[in-house]
Amino acid sequence: MSRDVFDESEYERRVKQTKERLREERLDAIVVSDPANMNYLTGYDGWSFYVHQAVIVTPENDEPVWVGREMDANGARATAWLSEPNIRSYSDDHVHSPYDLHPMDYVAKVLEDLDVEDGRIGLEMDAAYFTAKSYTRLQQNLPAADFEDRTLLVNWVRVKKSERELEYMREAARISELAMRAGLETIEEGVPEYEAAAAIYEALITGTDAFGGDYPSIVPLMPAGDHTGTPHLTWTDRSFERGDPVIIELSGCRHRYHSPLARTTFVGEPPEAIAHTAEVVVEGLEAALDAAEPGVTCESVERVWRETIAKHDMEKEDRIGYSMGLGYPPDWGEHTASIRPGDETVLEEDMTFHMIPGIWLDDYGVEISETFHVTSDGAETLAEFPRKLFTT
Amino acid sequence: MSRDVFDESEYERRVKQTKERLREERLDAIVVSDPANMNYLTGYDGWSFYVHQAVIVTPENDEPVWVGREMDANGARATAWLSEPNIRSYSDDHVHSPYDLHPMDYVAKVLEDLDVEDGRIGLEMDAAYFTAKSYTRLQQNLPAADFEDRTLLVNWVRVKKSERELEYMREAARISELAMRAGLETIEEGVPEYEAAAAIYEALITGTDAFGGDYPSIVPLMPAGDHTGTPHLTWTDRSFERGDPVIIELSGCRHRYHSPLARTTFVGEPPEAIAHTAEVVVEGLEAALDAAEPGVTCESVERVWRETIAKHDMEKEDRIGYSMGLGYPPDWGEHTASIRPGDETVLEEDMTFHMIPGIWLDDYGVEISETFHVTSDGAETLAEFPRKLFTT
Repeated sequence: MSRDVFDESEYERRVKQTKERLREERLDAIVVSDPANMNYLTGYDGWSFYVHQAVIVTPENDEPVWVGREMDANGARATAWLSEPNIRSYSDDHVHSPYDLHPMDYVAKVLEDLDVEDGRIGLEMDAAYFTAKSYTRLQQNLPAADFEDRTLLVNWVRVKKSERELEYMREAARISELAMRAGLETIEEGVPEYEAAAAIYEALITGTDAFGGDYPSIVPLMPAGDHTGTPHLTWTDRSFERGDPVIIELSGCRHRYHSPLARTTFVGEPPEAIAHTAEVVVEGLEAALDAAEPGVTCESVERVWRETIAKHDMEKEDRIGYSMGLGYPPDWGEHTASIRPGDETVLEEDMTFHMIPGIWLDDYGVEISETFHVTSDGAETLAEFPRKLFTT
Repeated sequence: MSRDVFDESEYERRVKQTKERLREERLDAIVVSDPANMNYLTGYDGWSFYVHQAVIVTPENDEPVWVGREMDANGARATAWLSEPNIRSYSDDHVHSPYDLHPMDYVAKVLEDLDVEDGRIGLEMDAAYFTAKSYTRLQQNLPAADFEDRTLLVNWVRVKKSERELEYMREAARISELAMRAGLETIEEGVPEYEAAAAIYEALITGTDAFGGDYPSIVPLMPAGDHTGTPHLTWTDRSFERGDPVIIELSGCRHRYHSPLARTTFVGEPPEAIAHTAEVVVEGLEAALDAAEPGVTCESVERVWRETIAKHDMEKEDRIGYSMGLGYPPDWGEHTASIRPGDETVLEEDMTFHMIPGIWLDDYGVEISETFHVTSDGAETLAEFPRKLFTT
């Protein structure tokens, strides 16, 4: 169970860093509702984020306080490092309630118990599961509180990974390699897309001989044919056809840590144009990876990519990468640093990114990606997988 | 692709019913952000709900308007029935933006284009992906608008299923049966939990000979041993042990429609107490299914369950079921009617529920569930799977 995933000292360090930020920003508390941030601070790991839940950190309280649904309190006892008084739960009549009860009414009570009801309280205003209603209910319950948007406060604490976190990401990379191989081996003319998805899933969860896989925060994506221009459509009953380019983007997962990987394959003999495009993507990716090292900015890494492919008269808008690691559906991205123009974040040792550049020509696209760890020497990629256009 | 999933006339009926509710409630628009509601009204189907997106319905506009990220507009063109002017997209610098841009700034512009910027606008205030920040940005952009909470307006339109929707739910039930069998066949002493999860996933996505499976909105849950009291923990590297009860809860999925199914198995020879508990659960489940028919209330169905198990001196708190069908992560529940005390929703023909009662004794629990369709005759269960305690 998650209690063994990290030593208690690692959680203590994370909480300590979070408290330092609270003090710097003169906050009396932060209400964390991003499940990845909840896990990061407490170890709590359950598929319960479809109901409202939170972790509260104050500069004074030693431990964070977990607040969730009554039936999930045992899950918190099993996976979080917290002592019993810091596991608080609301009754089931708060869930999709016809009684005008809302879980945030209970969170407000816990904030009162922590004596911060008239304090400055940070909220993750733009985190996926922190709804508009959660916010208005907190406001109604605590009219004297001063709420501040601190959506990414804990996300920025997460940005540099510990040795143990990197270990889990490397394990996830082993799984990504196996799943990518399973996908590439399955895709051929006449095979339904769902069969490739099933083979990938089976590999993602079976893992290696030494350990199993966790569910990834994003399902395997496999846009094929002219759908390579629709990056977020999922598989269908359609069969792969001769002449399809297929982009596979997937991630193994260990203890909620990811190591995403994308490759492009072609069903049949690829036309010269797509083979050339793939070579340009690899050249640009490798140039950008070479440029990544402590002290450079995210935007400068993107510039190297852009200038490299420009030599071949090609361009790609949008960002080409983002910081990531720990995550829950719907996203493994960390929402902190992005590798794109205008992002002046300076790369530091032990940051981790998914660099996923791609180039789209009229009817199809090519994407080839790597997850990398910023070391004192530069970018260490986590997966070992050939960087090229595959063919079936 | 989803364009063929339903006839356009079905979408038109859904939009018409939604507009009727808007008129009844004198709303000038509703901003729909629940991905299931977006799909229901437009057919849009993509894993893009980790960025902000919306569907806007007004009583005047013929079609809904889809608003999403630029790179997902092609996905909308491929899956939604909307005409080009009703597919609107914001540029990528709105995504996790360092430039103080937010996707809701663009949604506000679209609302202006629809001439409702000073109108009464319904919002899904408590939908998972409609964040507090989305709300405050809409308020800032449209100070003259009067926002109203209409979280479940479209969800209630969804509550009665069409013949085609029921067909997809029956297909999902076929997949649920196969996946349940795969799980039961894999679980035995010494087998790691992740291997059972992998077998279930493989079956969920491979589907039947006739069609493949979509990703379910909730991962397969398999609490085992004393973790049967922690219903939402996911699988680990632990191996099943002799004496473990294991609850398997899963759902096949077709075109985002679910048919969940739960069964309990026991590793080794079950003690008399657990075998007896399983019999009581089946008796209560069947009595409650017998009671479900058009015209009765949700709470009266729950009462039959409670009174049946009370004869055996057993009780279960919490609700025992909920309306469901279409869904995206994190939930396949519809958040409308619940089978629980106090819910006076009257059952009507073509509603669909997942009835998932369970009984917990000190150290373990037993759950046995059915998804059912309310017909003029009563409850028709969608899956055919023995209702009993399984053993390995």
